[in-house]
Amino acid sequence: MRQNMLAVTAATLFLTACNATPGGDSNAMSTALFPTTSQQSGKPKNIIMIVSDGMGPAYTTAYRNFRDDPATPQVDPVIFDRIFVGNASTYPAKESGFVTDSAASATALASGVKSYNGAIGVDVNKQPVESVLQRAKALGMKTGIAVTSQIVHATPASYMAHNESRKNYNEIADSFYDDKINGQFTANVMLGGGTQYFERKERDVTAQFIDAGYAYVDTYNKLATLPAGENVLGLFAPVGLPWVLDDKRKNRLAYLTEHAIKHLENDNGFFLLVEASQVDWAGHANDIAAAMAEMHDLNLTLEYLYQYVQKHPDTLVVLTADHSTGGLTVGARGEYAWAPEWLKKLSASPAVIASELPQADDPVAFASQQLGFELNDEEAQQVASLARLKSTRAIESGIKSILDIRSNTGWTTGGHTGVDVEVFAFGKGHNAFYGQYDNTDIAKKIFALLPDSVKQVETESEPTGESVPTDTCDFEKDWRCQ
Amino acid sequence: MRQNMLAVTAATLFLTACNATPGGDSNAMSTALFPTTSQQSGKPKNIIMIVSDGMGPAYTTAYRNFRDDPATPQVDPVIFDRIFVGNASTYPAKESGFVTDSAASATALASGVKSYNGAIGVDVNKQPVESVLQRAKALGMKTGIAVTSQIVHATPASYMAHNESRKNYNEIADSFYDDKINGQFTANVMLGGGTQYFERKERDVTAQFIDAGYAYVDTYNKLATLPAGENVLGLFAPVGLPWVLDDKRKNRLAYLTEHAIKHLENDNGFFLLVEASQVDWAGHANDIAAAMAEMHDLNLTLEYLYQYVQKHPDTLVVLTADHSTGGLTVGARGEYAWAPEWLKKLSASPAVIASELPQADDPVAFASQQLGFELNDEEAQQVASLARLKSTRAIESGIKSILDIRSNTGWTTGGHTGVDVEVFAFGKGHNAFYGQYDNTDIAKKIFALLPDSVKQVETESEPTGESVPTDTCDFEKDWRCQ
Repeated sequence: MRQNMLAVTAATLFLTACNATPGGDSNAMSTALFPTTSQQSGKPKNIIMIVSDGMGPAYTTAYRNFRDDPATPQVDPVIFDRIFVGNASTYPAKESGFVTDSAASATALASGVKSYNGAIGVDVNKQPVESVLQRAKALGMKTGIAVTSQIVHATPASYMAHNESRKNYNEIADSFYDDKINGQFTANVMLGGGTQYFERKERDVTAQFIDAGYAYVDTYNKLATLPAGENVLGLFAPVGLPWVLDDKRKNRLAYLTEHAIKHLENDNGFFLLVEASQVDWAGHANDIAAAMAEMHDLNLTLEYLYQYVQKHPDTLVVLTADHSTGGLTVGARGEYAWAPEWLKKLSASPAVIASELPQADDPVAFASQQLGFELNDEEAQQVASLARLKSTRAIESGIKSILDIRSNTGWTTGGHTGVDVEVFAFGKGHNAFYGQYDNTDIAKKIFALLPDSVKQVETESEPTGESVPTDTCDFEKDWRCQ
Repeated sequence: MRQNMLAVTAATLFLTACNATPGGDSNAMSTALFPTTSQQSGKPKNIIMIVSDGMGPAYTTAYRNFRDDPATPQVDPVIFDRIFVGNASTYPAKESGFVTDSAASATALASGVKSYNGAIGVDVNKQPVESVLQRAKALGMKTGIAVTSQIVHATPASYMAHNESRKNYNEIADSFYDDKINGQFTANVMLGGGTQYFERKERDVTAQFIDAGYAYVDTYNKLATLPAGENVLGLFAPVGLPWVLDDKRKNRLAYLTEHAIKHLENDNGFFLLVEASQVDWAGHANDIAAAMAEMHDLNLTLEYLYQYVQKHPDTLVVLTADHSTGGLTVGARGEYAWAPEWLKKLSASPAVIASELPQADDPVAFASQQLGFELNDEEAQQVASLARLKSTRAIESGIKSILDIRSNTGWTTGGHTGVDVEVFAFGKGHNAFYGQYDNTDIAKKIFALLPDSVKQVETESEPTGESVPTDTCDFEKDWRCQ
């Protein structure tokens, strides 16, 4: 059943060679990442689209402050400041009002089509719409996704699949295997979480991918051992990855991105979707410490890509958010202040601190050690009370409230808000992203930057594992359900 | 005592003629407002700087939604969408933390120097720093301010004056008269509110300006009767102007701007500061209806200026905010919705509705009529209770809470927040404003766009009214205090 690995039989360079000179100039506008007009002819060979889920404008400002060295006279710029280019509106199709969910917005970013909240790669009539990733695959490029959520979550799913509801995680996992583009799987590389959706009682999609020749890994270390150029399914957690505050890899998104690129690089170019999925989850949880840590993992990813594009100036990187989450505000309660210094020394996420607090011999000492600062009397009393609660959720809320008060952070919702989001871009073709536009325009700009026609594509053996409707398959009898 | 009016004895055109072709193309990037590189040589003749106080990114998104026609399939773009160019950080000098007040940010925007919260045109050592308006005057351009606050409020004051504290309104009013640049008053045109700071018991600055040859008006209609080219002091309210919801002129900022320009136009060019002052006041009050109405007045101003620049393509218009106010979020309370339709039919501001509610024969009917929609049972009960309260402030909070719940608006503070703000620009030289930078860079860019050297300036008679320290002047004996 094991298939041959990809055999490249003909790979012709389609794209105009880029004349940009790599350089380390700290003035972003003068580096190779922002080439002059004469250097920008042609289209990028590789496109890396990054969605930072939930990252409204308050998150990027907060992160700059979070990173600031108090000893310097100015607030120090971060990489976001070097690569900002524009602003995008995020509203969904009119039937869903002015505030989008991640499915409608990812469908807009991926396909250029507005849809209803919950839609995965389908329009308001539930008809499939092609994504830029799918078009890239059809044009002979390699494709991949690297995310910190389960890989079937709304954002990656909208680039990979078509489903009337984001909730149909199992169907979406199946479609990653069942849907073919020119006889090939939609993605060459899929990295993130989600084993519970792939290895199910009635169907083991992971096994099917292995049978079809994909390398499968379930730890970061195993991912590191793979030779370059493999087709890879990497699932590192049952659902989403741990908070980066709790993960042993504090650069997990940067790491997944680097390894995705290692496997995607080829003469025909690649399209990679990267998602900083858990900025949004921190926003939903109103957890400013987790939010800043997830932003830092994204920052490390951008710093890696910035170096990558200096060495590969024929690559375009675009970053935006799908919406803002939590109604985060930098300052609250009438005070003209925001104090990120209390968010820098956590040893674990508030969720994990909360789960462990009731077992601590000395809850106040434990909380103080985990949060990284000495609790004042009021906070110590609060923590002592929290430790007696049965609800971990209530304990977590109490811990987060200490951080909100310390940092003077504001929130207005556990859901999303409708504010426009920032757009960042660097590398070949980034100039197309300056200004104000709608999130659908981001897909349209990327479609326009993809090759005009099909390249001489890699020869990839048709996988034999065919689509098997789950209702006709008894997994107990056939563990691969085939 | 009455002085001669300005007599222009020599006015030489300093600036390169602009070759841009006016046009009505709806594609902003292709119109004369966004000229191609070859059309951009030279510097603008006139510069109009607009500060929309408190207008963080949530305000512009909210306003687009507020203006949207529900009958159209997309959310309709507004003028902000056509003129967006960049993003600016707003933090004050480090001693004031990460969240600025309007004085520090206006000083940054006006002079390019970071200062402490409260500083009016002075640095952290309380030393005066030159503003772009002051430089423009020194270079022989006409200068003006048109605002909806009192004209001595933080933003206009930071362009006009130098004072260690924004609270010293009387001193700032005095300095408008006392400070001279090349023997001339700082501004040729001053329009806004603030009679109580100018016509005081111990000094009548208004009378001094009249004696110095300035036309003085205190109503919009009187302003309209003045012939073009006058030096004008127009003070239309004791402190700030009424909310636009309560003003008889629903385009008051656009009107003041148009009239300011009428008096400033001259062969040497002009610098005009416009402030939509009360977007911030609505944010402080957590009043979403007033916020949208103030944004609409700003929108009308921009639409007027957009037409003006088509006819005068040698003019640059730059708009930004000094910070965001109120922690406004478009959506709140876990609901993925924002409903601006409830904010469109108010007959008066919530403040005025609240002040009149207790006198109404039928408070529920009155509130319903004033708000422009029928109250549901819960709201009707709430209004009936509010009408019995003695505190107008409490009644106003109740009215605003009805609007917040109806529209699903969120707020986190009665103060400011630290989020970066958007920058908008059109006309000659607008290209300098693309990208991400600090608010001090806006002043630096404008300094660079001002003429390189002194023009042959208008001859303006030296006013005889000299600075008189208030402690040596007895207004009871000398009504002009001279």
